[in-house]
Amino acid sequence: MSYRVSVLQFEPRLLDLKANLARLERLLRDVETDLVVLPELCTSGYVFASREETESVSESIPDGPAFGLISALAWERKCSVVYGFAERDGSRLYNSCALVNPDGSHHLYRKTHLFNREKLFFSSGNTGLKVSPAKDGVKVGLMVCFDWQFPEAARTLALKGAQIICHPSNLVLPWCQQAMITRSLENRVFSITANRTGTETNGGENLTFTGQSQILGTKGEILIRLNESETKLATCEIDPAEALDKSVTPRNDAFADRRPEFYEL
Amino acid sequence: MSYRVSVLQFEPRLLDLKANLARLERLLRDVETDLVVLPELCTSGYVFASREETESVSESIPDGPAFGLISALAWERKCSVVYGFAERDGSRLYNSCALVNPDGSHHLYRKTHLFNREKLFFSSGNTGLKVSPAKDGVKVGLMVCFDWQFPEAARTLALKGAQIICHPSNLVLPWCQQAMITRSLENRVFSITANRTGTETNGGENLTFTGQSQILGTKGEILIRLNESETKLATCEIDPAEALDKSVTPRNDAFADRRPEFYEL
Repeated sequence: MSYRVSVLQFEPRLLDLKANLARLERLLRDVETDLVVLPELCTSGYVFASREETESVSESIPDGPAFGLISALAWERKCSVVYGFAERDGSRLYNSCALVNPDGSHHLYRKTHLFNREKLFFSSGNTGLKVSPAKDGVKVGLMVCFDWQFPEAARTLALKGAQIICHPSNLVLPWCQQAMITRSLENRVFSITANRTGTETNGGENLTFTGQSQILGTKGEILIRLNESETKLATCEIDPAEALDKSVTPRNDAFADRRPEFYEL
Repeated sequence: MSYRVSVLQFEPRLLDLKANLARLERLLRDVETDLVVLPELCTSGYVFASREETESVSESIPDGPAFGLISALAWERKCSVVYGFAERDGSRLYNSCALVNPDGSHHLYRKTHLFNREKLFFSSGNTGLKVSPAKDGVKVGLMVCFDWQFPEAARTLALKGAQIICHPSNLVLPWCQQAMITRSLENRVFSITANRTGTETNGGENLTFTGQSQILGTKGEILIRLNESETKLATCEIDPAEALDKSVTPRNDAFADRRPEFYEL
């Protein structure tokens, strides 16, 4: 099966939900794809100075404005969309992402491993690491940014059957893009890391995001890698069925050769 | 604590135990280090055409000739040595490595994940993934070559307290050296991958080994990386205590932030 997968890299505007939604609408208006992944917190920006600020750009789903825009877009463009946003659920805030499908279905993931000051504003995710069907039934695993640091995250998604790991990110450390090659390779899955660009300064914090969004094949090959600063929607064709083949050599299988009796959890 | 760690890269001669031991004796005669790691199957070569061939260069420990040479060397040079060899235990053969200490103690590891045709000649390891004390009590985790493919191997060693992962290898695939950067980084441990060089042809098989032996720091930084073909003993100084620090940011710890309740084994 030929399946078009896309990554969107751009620079959200901090605390300006309205501007970001308008920007996303423009950037994705003509998208021709089956699955597109957007960055973490792409509707709100990242460097919050307080919980109040974070809450001011958060929303619940399915009734929030970002979800409304994204689900309309998924329906119109007949594609699945994965996007990161600040989620409000009662009194709690989560660093979440959602998979929204053209048939109106959606799946929510709340970031398992929070990074640094995120711990001040967000609750740790309680959804676990989930695999959900995207357009045409392709199995998609959701993880967010710093989840990359923990090999168990991608491994769990792959063991649960993920063919494509969708990985909205706001990366500031230098290691992830290279480490995701290992993640794809060790699990024989596609991965799509959608990172943002730009610098944000707020409340005494200053962070520069590293761009270099990428789409990787099941042997860690780089199918698409953007540069550090460009705003771009990039698309390539893959065959998601390749991720069902876990063979490494004629006598080795990345999953069947595992020996969990010797592994420490 | 300043601790000298070394990697030896060379080309063993296939099926010539005697020549390989003489070579090792010459290469290590003047070594000044605390811990040196040698390649996988460094006493025997790699491309066996039959089980009989494999058996012909195998030995049991502690009574085998390679063990005798290495333990004498560890005592004389006052260093720990990790080396890979074909082990015979009754009717079984294992792709093993041993840590031999200057005080005469030794620790055995039998490769957990066999690669390709190794499965024809060797039994899968039954020792599990072990952490053992090297010289000065530094905690060393042993894994062999293809174990790198499984993130659980290095993870298990690190969770058991390994400060340095010693990784004798005979690498033929192009991915491991880069993936070990991820292994060091995700576990905040040092790693020493001792790979061999050269090409072996036997029984219709032809394999070229990729060299590029390396020593990595706890953030995946390359402290030493040899080239594809050189024969070389290389040494650097590290502080093994750095591997006790698992902090990633002031609010993140690579181990304490794990959430095993969400991980699939």
